Amino acid sequence: MSPNIAYAVGVDFGGTNIVAGIVNSKGKVVARIKIPTCAKEGKAKVLNRISLAIKEVLEKFKGGIGKIKGIGIGSPGLIDHIRGIVNVPPNLPGWKHVNLKKYLEAKFHKPVFVANDVNATALGESEFGAGKGVKNLICITLGTGVGGAIIINGKLYVGSHQFAGEIGHMTVERHGLRCNCGNIGCMERYVGCGFIAERAMAEIKKGVQTKITELVDGDLDKITPKILTDAAKLGDKLALKIWNETGEYLGITLASVVNFLDPEMIIVGGGVAQAGKYIFEPTKREIRKRAYKFLTKSLKIVPAKLGEDAGVIGSATLVLKNKGAM
Amino acid sequence: MSPNIAYAVGVDFGGTNIVAGIVNSKGKVVARIKIPTCAKEGKAKVLNRISLAIKEVLEKFKGGIGKIKGIGIGSPGLIDHIRGIVNVPPNLPGWKHVNLKKYLEAKFHKPVFVANDVNATALGESEFGAGKGVKNLICITLGTGVGGAIIINGKLYVGSHQFAGEIGHMTVERHGLRCNCGNIGCMERYVGCGFIAERAMAEIKKGVQTKITELVDGDLDKITPKILTDAAKLGDKLALKIWNETGEYLGITLASVVNFLDPEMIIVGGGVAQAGKYIFEPTKREIRKRAYKFLTKSLKIVPAKLGEDAGVIGSATLVLKNKGAM
Repeated sequence: MSPNIAYAVGVDFGGTNIVAGIVNSKGKVVARIKIPTCAKEGKAKVLNRISLAIKEVLEKFKGGIGKIKGIGIGSPGLIDHIRGIVNVPPNLPGWKHVNLKKYLEAKFHKPVFVANDVNATALGESEFGAGKGVKNLICITLGTGVGGAIIINGKLYVGSHQFAGEIGHMTVERHGLRCNCGNIGCMERYVGCGFIAERAMAEIKKGVQTKITELVDGDLDKITPKILTDAAKLGDKLALKIWNETGEYLGITLASVVNFLDPEMIIVGGGVAQAGKYIFEPTKREIRKRAYKFLTKSLKIVPAKLGEDAGVIGSATLVLKNKGAM
Repeated sequence: MSPNIAYAVGVDFGGTNIVAGIVNSKGKVVARIKIPTCAKEGKAKVLNRISLAIKEVLEKFKGGIGKIKGIGIGSPGLIDHIRGIVNVPPNLPGWKHVNLKKYLEAKFHKPVFVANDVNATALGESEFGAGKGVKNLICITLGTGVGGAIIINGKLYVGSHQFAGEIGHMTVERHGLRCNCGNIGCMERYVGCGFIAERAMAEIKKGVQTKITELVDGDLDKITPKILTDAAKLGDKLALKIWNETGEYLGITLASVVNFLDPEMIIVGGGVAQAGKYIFEPTKREIRKRAYKFLTKSLKIVPAKLGEDAGVIGSATLVLKNKGAM
């Protein structure tokens, strides 16, 4: 245990699991534990579970709490990054305006930093992952929803209401489908996990012949991006069409972001990104077709690098690099 | 002349005119001159004209060159903001990679700062105009093209290739009209001055009865945004329809930008903004319809305030506030 290396606790707090890790100043996770969130049991229980996860990972850590600089936590929902307050996180019933910073500082007597989970991940990727050394980048996560975060000058940019980065809710179809957010034609409405599956399902119901049907044993509700990737690997035309379309929608939005924000890099993470070339290729093609050539020539579009640890590393980065939001 | 007030030369360099002004550290223009650019006479001549404008305005300034902190210049084209190089400005034949900073520093022995004209204007509005005291804002100019600039944390954000802000080239129609930039469905293709007129013209050619025809004495080539505003004031249905449509296109794009960048304010300048409520109302309506409610609730969408002096004041701001680009 080198005396020159700092350590922090990073907590990836989600609706299903809480992952807590000890991360060193080189971005390495030296201890980790994962426990269920028990979201349905309400706020008090969940707060206890967060404390428990932190306690347990500290016990696993040989350096002891004395070596720990602080605690960073990435949370879903609308976050007050300065005061450390979590507002209305989805999938966490009973949470409304919870001062997580205050709560954890009282428990652990260490500085606590709270960030939105997508922002925390982006900061981790920017500092220790795919975006190391890059000044201006955007990071998107493709999952149930499409999240986004903006790093400017190596710092997290959160905007006026600390809500910047909602790339999934940029309009991609002027007269498009209604989105949960109230807008119509949001990019997420075409690129979000369930919506990709929905489009495949609709085609199959129209009678299109495809290997997808066999892969889900005829149960169309089982269609997932993973299944579509498997089908695409078998050369299935419908699966390839759906991926191309998805990449087109994503690419249109990213091309707009490239022309508007001129980032050096776009980092793409989340479950849907596991589709690899089936999503990356049409996305890149669309960006190159639409954005200024001299911007795309050197633009890097890369997969996220930190994988499952991204949330933990990113949350710890809030502490380790003292990189609060701007 | 207070000893505590600093002064700088601000130059608004355009394809038609060069305006040079002496601006004080309160953002006031204390002297100004305007001369034609003579763009067709080539680069050497134009450089001479810029020097001439600066010399003449310095002669008008009672403080003398000793009182001047430096020279700021806003130029069209792709600018290297660090080195002060102007690349391929439109409407300036023979210009390619001109080091304006070096040229003017050698002539005037004062520090020179060069910025893209839209960026310079935005900086002026941010420091002395509509955006005074606002941290994060975007500034758009509605003219032949649609320009944009981004202020983050009170500083000009120019991006990785110093090209950020190209809001006019964000896609608003997935299968839209071809834009000069190569993309299809760019917002500028619907909101740019000439394209607004073009849409009105197309409707009239289809046989739509409108007061616009009388206002241009039957010569449809004379249709301008000004004419459309005059017609709208008379309650003309086609003019109102064209403005509503224009506002819708602008609003779709701005709603996307609001969800993505979460700015506190959007400043709208340029000739087309003179249409006032005819463009502002449908634009605001569309933004409110599409962007997150809690973002739009406090969002300010305001006209630019510095008017014709915006370029001169903004360019001088580069010097006065030592606010280079980031």
